[in-house]
Parts: sequence; structure tokens; C-alpha cells
Amino acid sequence: MDRRELKRAVFEANLQLPRLGLVVHTWGNASQIDRGRGEVAIKPSGVAYEGMTAEDIVIVDLDGNIVEGKLNPSSDLATHIRLYRAFACAGGIVHTHSTYATAFAQALREIPCQGTTHADTFFGTIPLTRAMRPEEIFADYEANTGGVIIERFASIDPLHMPGVLVAGHGPFSWGKDAAAAVYASSVLEEVAKMAYLTQTLGGTSKISGELLGKHFFRKHGEGAYYGQ
Amino acid sequence: MDRRELKRAVFEANLQLPRLGLVVHTWGNASQIDRGRGEVAIKPSGVAYEGMTAEDIVIVDLDGNIVEGKLNPSSDLATHIRLYRAFACAGGIVHTHSTYATAFAQALREIPCQGTTHADTFFGTIPLTRAMRPEEIFADYEANTGGVIIERFASIDPLHMPGVLVAGHGPFSWGKDAAAAVYASSVLEEVAKMAYLTQTLGGTSKISGELLGKHFFRKHGEGAYYGQ
Amino acid sequence: MDRRELKRAVFEANLQLPRLGLVVHTWGNASQIDRGRGEVAIKPSGVAYEGMTAEDIVIVDLDGNIVEGKLNPSSDLATHIRLYRAFACAGGIVHTHSTYATAFAQALREIPCQGTTHADTFFGTIPLTRAMRPEEIFADYEANTGGVIIERFASIDPLHMPGVLVAGHGPFSWGKDAAAAVYASSVLEEVAKMAYLTQTLGGTSKISGELLGKHFFRKHGEGAYYGQ
Amino acid sequence: MDRRELKRAVFEANLQLPRLGLVVHTWGNASQIDRGRGEVAIKPSGVAYEGMTAEDIVIVDLDGNIVEGKLNPSSDLATHIRLYRAFACAGGIVHTHSTYATAFAQALREIPCQGTTHADTFFGTIPLTRAMRPEEIFADYEANTGGVIIERFASIDPLHMPGVLVAGHGPFSWGKDAAAAVYASSVLEEVAKMAYLTQTLGGTSKISGELLGKHFFRKHGEGAYYGQ
Repeated sequence: MDRRELKRAVFEANLQLPRLGLVVHTWGNASQIDRGRGEVAIKPSGVAYEGMTAEDIVIVDLDGNIVEGKLNPSSDLATHIRLYRAFACAGGIVHTHSTYATAFAQALREIPCQGTTHADTFFGTIPLTRAMRPEEIFADYEANTGGVIIERFASIDPLHMPGVLVAGHGPFSWGKDAAAAVYASSVLEEVAKMAYLTQTLGGTSKISGELLGKHFFRKHGEGAYYGQ
Repeated sequence: MDRRELKRAVFEANLQLPRLGLVVHTWGNASQIDRGRGEVAIKPSGVAYEGMTAEDIVIVDLDGNIVEGKLNPSSDLATHIRLYRAFACAGGIVHTHSTYATAFAQALREIPCQGTTHADTFFGTIPLTRAMRPEEIFADYEANTGGVIIERFASIDPLHMPGVLVAGHGPFSWGKDAAAAVYASSVLEEVAKMAYLTQTLGGTSKISGELLGKHFFRKHGEGAYYGQ
Repeated sequence: MDRRELKRAVFEANLQLPRLGLVVHTWGNASQIDRGRGEVAIKPSGVAYEGMTAEDIVIVDLDGNIVEGKLNPSSDLATHIRLYRAFACAGGIVHTHSTYATAFAQALREIPCQGTTHADTFFGTIPLTRAMRPEEIFADYEANTGGVIIERFASIDPLHMPGVLVAGHGPFSWGKDAAAAVYASSVLEEVAKMAYLTQTLGGTSKISGELLGKHFFRKHGEGAYYGQ
Repeated sequence: MDRRELKRAVFEANLQLPRLGLVVHTWGNASQIDRGRGEVAIKPSGVAYEGMTAEDIVIVDLDGNIVEGKLNPSSDLATHIRLYRAFACAGGIVHTHSTYATAFAQALREIPCQGTTHADTFFGTIPLTRAMRPEEIFADYEANTGGVIIERFASIDPLHMPGVLVAGHGPFSWGKDAAAAVYASSVLEEVAKMAYLTQTLGGTSKISGELLGKHFFRKHGEGAYYGQ
């Protein structure tokens, strides 16, 4: 995949965010990494989805230096880079302020697995980071946002848990490429909405470990038999 | 109805699911049976609604063997077949993860009849299956999903109750053909949303048996006088 | 207004119901009366909005006899006629199963006036009928539905309160013509949604009588100064 | 900017309100001031968004006298003028009855800052006015609506808090021009929806002052580094 194709993939992934109802205004961004070249393509900062072109996508190296592009990269770039460095399985990353997932992040609640919709994509409770400390906010805020995510994943495999809630902020998600990260972002929002409704109805049960495993591994790994 | 017409009917029914807001991504499937031939037409597994054609619909026999089609049938096929074998009134079946119905399934709550919108289509409480046991999940999971539905209907007439909530999973619905099953699926979601709102407002009353019967039989059976 | 114009007005009003999100499938109907001729035009029963033409609208007299049209009138016709006979101010009537208004009807809760959005159209608490008795359901059900509405309005002026919730069923609304009844129906749904949110947030206050009167009479009656 | 351009800007801003889902029917209005000329352009009263043209926008002076235009200005004009006179930073003003913001106004609850979506635009708790007194309602109601807003901002800088909830009524917002006021109106609605969900999930935490300041000043003031 050359730079032009990489920018095209990131451009298309970003456009999916408002189409799927995950982003209003400019409140989201998708990126994708070329691990061979060590380069990341990402949405430019504060640019409206309408009118944006594939040429507006910015390419940076893993120190955040601009390699190609005339615009400033997303202000969340440093979070993306921290995650790419820590999570080998992440080929694409998405950040949104999607409504229900953000509500859980604001309520400081993780999302337990209460149904198979959740289990099909997230193998267990969707985790929440701790709140950030003042010194983490004052300096290198965006990189430190990545830091609290990585800290929370100390004993979680990001391949089996392609998303997280940042406390008081909102969701990040990832996948093998930008399109897969968008998909995870969309599932996270739908699962958060179902969890909201389930919990406000008084539902507190998690599904069994057997049902969780059955659904997750029906779609992932060597024994998967869903799809073509 | 020849195979071509059967596939067309199932294709159209599947397309209705995202249009009616009942399915996002590939999270649903509709099928229809030709009881004369003993053949079922069903959506292929994991194929996006956009770009799918009537030719992609798969025809199988009642043992699940592919009779016509190049793609794998829905991974939920075995559930559909179990239901067709048990419920003579079912000419079409639909499975979705529609949001409100799934929330009730996750909260492990049945949906009592609290209004005439419900009574027009479902003659009483919409039932919930029991949770599945580990051994039912490990082997023949999809067929056993049909099994717990059938078990729950031991004393319920599926002709008067064209839908069910599978615990921790989501809704299945049926009707005389695939289009009727889609309609039942849509009513189930709307009724679940109304029940959610009613119950979170504190409403606990069911409508009277007289009002339930009046509305259901205004639209069904010999004395029906709704419509043309 | 001749019969052709009357049918056209009723046809257009019916089409507004799904466009405004108040009706799915065939769950609603709008009518309008020509008091000079003593004739009512109403939607045909169970006919889909898509594909319906102005010629499908049915004209009946005030005994419910078909005067013009080839289709059966709405099964709710007798409710409309009872209301036209009792409420001189009603030139058009609408019935829907709109989601939030129906939830209040199912929860057996009236809608108190908690804000100016409500006060602009409904002068006080939106009333709820009593539940219907078995004998009222068994015979002349639709006419008796009108009966419990009229009973509830014994001391309410329908000119100042253009809508009602029928217990366990859903809303009816009215206005000077079918279009005005559609508008009242739309406001009722929006007001019900706001009341749902207000009450589930814990809000219990009604606005003052002064603010209620200010807003209602800013838009209605001799001192109105809203609009052109 | 001449009068024609001013009317065009106000026309476009008004059209954004229904497109963003903030206004149904005619329940909202946007205005913009030309401080050099001392003139305000505002939506005409009760005119439908569909069919409205830029020529229908009314221009008034700061006493409310019509300077240009054939239609009556919005009935809320006096509120806008009071705010323009009091808030030097307001170049545009928007009023809506957007659903979630109105629910908070009806529930008489301010919106605390529970997340960064809020902090990006509103520097702290979104304030609620006191209820208006009978005498404030009977005479000069619309001007007095501006009065209770200004009273509530005695110790709040409107530049850092571009919106307010009027008790029992709904939101007003402002910005450097009409388009910016529309943006603030949209953020206020989305933030209110997130706050509703957060609070009904049981979330009571506010984000830290450090995180609030970081996000607000990342986008505003001299140290801003968001965008191009």
C-alpha cells in the first residue's frame, strides 16, 4: 500500500464516522499505520468532514513529524501514536465522542457483557481508564491519554478487546486497519446503548463465560465459522 | 412459487431489515420456507446488505444441506430449521439484534401487554427463553437456540405469539412468509420501545383481557374486520 | 370546499404522519369534516401510506355510511364521528400510536405542563381517559372509545386542549382542520418526549399559571401576537 | 458586511437549525448584530423554514423598530436585543426548544461538566435562570426573559459560557456570529443528551478543574492549538 492508498483508506474511514452517526461536527478521527514504513495517516485537526478530500489527510512518522500533507494533524495524534507503539495488533485507530459510549465514560462505568451483540466483538467487560492526574493533564496531555489506556490494558489483550472508555472523555477503538477500527467503534456505541437500556430496566446479569466464548470465537480466531 | 421467486421474496425481506432500522451491519437474517419442496431460502452469512443480490440468497433442505447457491448460509440457519420443523404456522422467520427488544432479552425480562399496539400483533406477554446450559452452547449451539425457544412455547400457540426473546441474545419472529416475519420483527421492536418507556415512567399495569382480545381478534382470525 | 378538495386535504394530512415520525406501518389516521354537508373524509383501513392516492380517501356521512369511495374506512371511524358530534371546534381529527404519547397512555399518566413548549399548544394538563369497561369493549368499541374521551372532557374545553391520551391505547388530537390536527399530534408527541425526559431526571414542577397563560394566549385568541 | 450579507448570514444560520435536529416546526430563531450600524437581523415570526427566503429576514434597530423587511420579527426579538445590549461578546444569538436541553430547563437542573465534550465549549456548569415572577410575565415578557438571563450571568463571563437554560422554557446560546451561536446551540443539545444519559446511569462526578481548563483552552484563547 503506497501513501496515496493509505490516505485514501484513512479518508474513507473518517467519512464513515458521521455516516454511522458516531461523530457530529469534527468530534472524531480515524488513523491507519503502515508498519513497514513506520508512518501513520490521520485526519487533519478541526477540518469538517464535508469538503475534506483524501489529499487533506496528513502522514506523520512515529515521532509525530509531518512527512506529507499541508495541514495540522488531529490534536489527538499523540494518543494514536502511543497506542500504535504499545499495541502491535492495532493497524487502525478511531476516536469519537459517540453519545452512549461517552455517557458510560462520563458515568465512570465499565460495560459488562450482558449479551451476544457485545460478545461477538468484545471478549468481556469493556474497560474504563482511571482519571488522569493534574500533572498528566498539564504536560503531554494527549500522549498521557494513551498512557492511561495502556496502563489499563496491563492484563488485557487488545486483540480480544478492541476498545476502551477514557474516564470523563469518551471511547477509543482499534482493529487491523482503519475500517476495522470504525467497525469496532460502531459496535461499541450500539453495545453501550443496549447496556444503557438493559441497566435502566434493572438488568444486572452478565452472560455466561460459555456463551461469551462461543460468540467471540465463532467470529474470531482459528475456529471461526461466521461469514464466507 | 419457484426457487427464483422464493429467493426474490427472501432477498426483499432481508433488505427491509436495515430500512426499518432493525439491523445494522450484518446483524440479522430473514428466511422463508417452501413446505411443498421442503426447502428454505436464507441470507448468506456475514454478507453486507449493500451490494447483496437475490442470487446470493442460499437455498437449503431441512437437513441444512445447500441445494442452490454459492455462499455459506447464515450461521443461524440451524435455529431457523428447528423452528420450521416445530412451528407449522411459520412460513418465514426473522432474527435481529434490534435495540430495545435486545435490551429486554439482556435484562431477562418478558414484555407484558401494556397497550393496544402490542395487542394488535401479540396475544399476551412476549416470552423469554431460559438461559442456555454450557453443554447446549458447546455443541449444536444454533440448533439448541431453536430448542429453548420451542421449549418455552410448550403451552403457547406460535400463531398467536409470533415472536420471542432469547435470553442474553435477542429476538426471533415469524409469520406466514418472510415479509410477515419482518413485520412482526418491526412491531416487536416498537412494542419493546414503548414498554421500556412505560416501565421507566413507573407504569406497571397490563391492559385487560377484554381489550387484549378485542384488538388481537380485530386483526386476526374469522371475526377480523381491520383492513380491506 | 368540494369533495375532491376535502379528500385532497385529508390525503395530504395522512401523508404528513409518517413524514413527521408519528406513524409507522398503517398505525394512524387523519380525517376532516365538512360541517355544511355533514360529511367526513377519512383514511381507508389498513392501506399503506406508500402507494395510497387521494382517490382512496373514503367519504362517509355522520352515521358512518359510505357516500363516496371504494374502500373500507378506517376501523377507528366511529371514534372520529363521536368526537365530531361532541366537539364543535373539531374540524379535523388525528389518531396515532406515536411512541412517547403512547407510553404515557400505557403508564396511565397524564402529562402536566412543565414547560412553554407544552403551554404554546395545550392549556394545562393533557388528560387521560379512564380504562374502558368490558361491556364498552365488547360492543361498539370504537364509538365507546369516543365516549370515554367525551366523558373526560366534561369540564375541559376542547378548543384549549386539542388532544387526549386514551388509557392503554394512545393519543387522539384535533384542530380546525386535518392539518391542524396533525400539528397538534406532532406537538403532543414532542411534549410527551420532553415530559418523559424531565420526569426521569426527577423534575416534578409545573410552570406557573401566569407563564402557562402567557404562552397559550400569545398564540391563541384575540390577544395573540405570534406569527404574521 | 452590508444588509444583504447580514440577512444572508442569518438566513443560512436559521436553516441550519432544523437540519441539525434542533428545531421542529417554527420553534426557534437565530439573529446576528451589526454593531457598527446598531442593527439586528432576525427570523420573521412563525414563518416555516421551508419556503423562507433571505429576503424574509427582518432588520431592526436596537429599539426593535423595523429598518428593513415586510414581516413581523420573531416574537422573541426583545430577548435577543436585551442580550446584545448586555453581552458585548455576542455577535449572534440562537433560541431553540431542542429536546434534551429543554428537558433540563423543565426539570430546573443546571448541567454540570461531566466530560470533555462539554468542556470543549462550555467552561463549567451551564447555568439555569430563576423562574420569572408574575409581573415579569404580564408586561414586557420577552425583554424580561433577557433580564433573568443577564441577572444569572452577574458573575459569569458569557465569552466562556455561550449558553443558558431559561427555567421552564428552553435554551438560548450565542457566539461571535449567528453561525457560531448555532454551533453552541448544537453542542448544548448534545451535551444535555450526554448529561441525561450519564445521570440516569447514576453518574454524579464532574471532571477535574484541570481537565476542564485543558479542554476549554485547547480550543479557545491565546494558547489554543486545536484546528488549523
